[in-house]
Amino acid sequence: MSGTVHLVGAGPGAADLLTVRAARLLGEADVVFFDALVPPGVLALAPDAQKIPVGKRCGRHSTAQRFINKRLLDAARRYRTVVRLKGGDPMLFGRAQEEISFLGKNRIKVEIVPGITSALAASAELGISLTLRGVSRSVVFATPRSADGESSGWARAVAAADTAVLYMAAGDAVRVRDALMASGKSPRTPVAVAESVALEGQALHAGDLQTLPELAARCAGGPALVMIGDVFAAAQAAAWRSLEPRAASQTA
Amino acid sequence: MSGTVHLVGAGPGAADLLTVRAARLLGEADVVFFDALVPPGVLALAPDAQKIPVGKRCGRHSTAQRFINKRLLDAARRYRTVVRLKGGDPMLFGRAQEEISFLGKNRIKVEIVPGITSALAASAELGISLTLRGVSRSVVFATPRSADGESSGWARAVAAADTAVLYMAAGDAVRVRDALMASGKSPRTPVAVAESVALEGQALHAGDLQTLPELAARCAGGPALVMIGDVFAAAQAAAWRSLEPRAASQTA
Repeated sequence: MSGTVHLVGAGPGAADLLTVRAARLLGEADVVFFDALVPPGVLALAPDAQKIPVGKRCGRHSTAQRFINKRLLDAARRYRTVVRLKGGDPMLFGRAQEEISFLGKNRIKVEIVPGITSALAASAELGISLTLRGVSRSVVFATPRSADGESSGWARAVAAADTAVLYMAAGDAVRVRDALMASGKSPRTPVAVAESVALEGQALHAGDLQTLPELAARCAGGPALVMIGDVFAAAQAAAWRSLEPRAASQTA
Repeated sequence: MSGTVHLVGAGPGAADLLTVRAARLLGEADVVFFDALVPPGVLALAPDAQKIPVGKRCGRHSTAQRFINKRLLDAARRYRTVVRLKGGDPMLFGRAQEEISFLGKNRIKVEIVPGITSALAASAELGISLTLRGVSRSVVFATPRSADGESSGWARAVAAADTAVLYMAAGDAVRVRDALMASGKSPRTPVAVAESVALEGQALHAGDLQTLPELAARCAGGPALVMIGDVFAAAQAAAWRSLEPRAASQTA
């Protein structure tokens, strides 16, 4: 009888922004496989588990994923409760499907526990709702990263939505800005770059689409979100103030 | 000295899908204002608080919102910890901004605690990732509901994204289908209608965009999401099986 693999969302970083279910599973886990971005405070919720880092490196995705799949399978055959901990939510830019399919084919039971995706954590920290009556009733989460040098479908999706949050985009700010302006987004569209949301070093850089490369250049190297849309006009004035006290209280 | 108003995401319904922070705040709250969709199991996390329902009725939004704002302000002037509990995440279709702005103008401190939005809970229950290498790298959350009889901007946003989840759409399925097909979405695009996610009565109806009205008609009246995109092709075969056992275990 094999164990169950739980794909668990670790949320944005703060240990109290996991779900109650995720925290309970970590406490019960025999073994926890975790990504590079999961901070120590979250791993501390699994004091009795074997903790195994399986961070992936850019450009070496396929090999690493096959290796992770195999390790999850081996663990499920040996242990009762296996937790695969992924930053944010597993079903949004978490590459969960490859693990779900592989384990399913090998008749391992998989349960998925959702997590707070960093876009929603950033919105909460900023105090700016992603939807707003009369301004925004569509919100797109997208990434311009592609393994295969693919097209600008993501830019059309971003241009068509009222509000957009781009994951894994801050390192590629010039290309992102140019693609969005080519897709019809105004250079004056408000933009906020949120770095290390709910982690030590949380910071916000607000401006507009035209200035996105400068905003991204101010990041100190933490994971960053690029947030685009009229709802973020408020970020240009107020966000620093609302962010700093929370960042201080959270890293205490 | 006024208290703090915490706008807290209640998640999709299951009491263990709130964040640890949300559960702690409910335990400390003096008073909890809650929406119609928050189930009793979640409210039970606040055994010592005064619990006040503030459900809104369709078409009477403005009056109700002003009334809620006023009650939150009065409570913040009287109590230390006021929780405003909203289904899902407060910053996604939660109308949080009106409460944040009003309280801010009245110099009341507001903190926001994110929640699991029902689209991510549904994705977890289905075992279908909203993003998928080579298939989907943009996900839009949108609503076709409008107070002001507004245009089809939401439909263009949905048509441009690889994956879409529509909130508050199942009651208007014919108009939604027609608007999406007019915006260029293929009638054969896979669709899944997820009802009462993580609640008693959880159900899934899978088909394609052409058959959306029939899928929506099978709903029993619970809150429903319309999920659209190629990633949901898998839902047509497998979803009933993966949903039913979980629904049983969660309502136990």
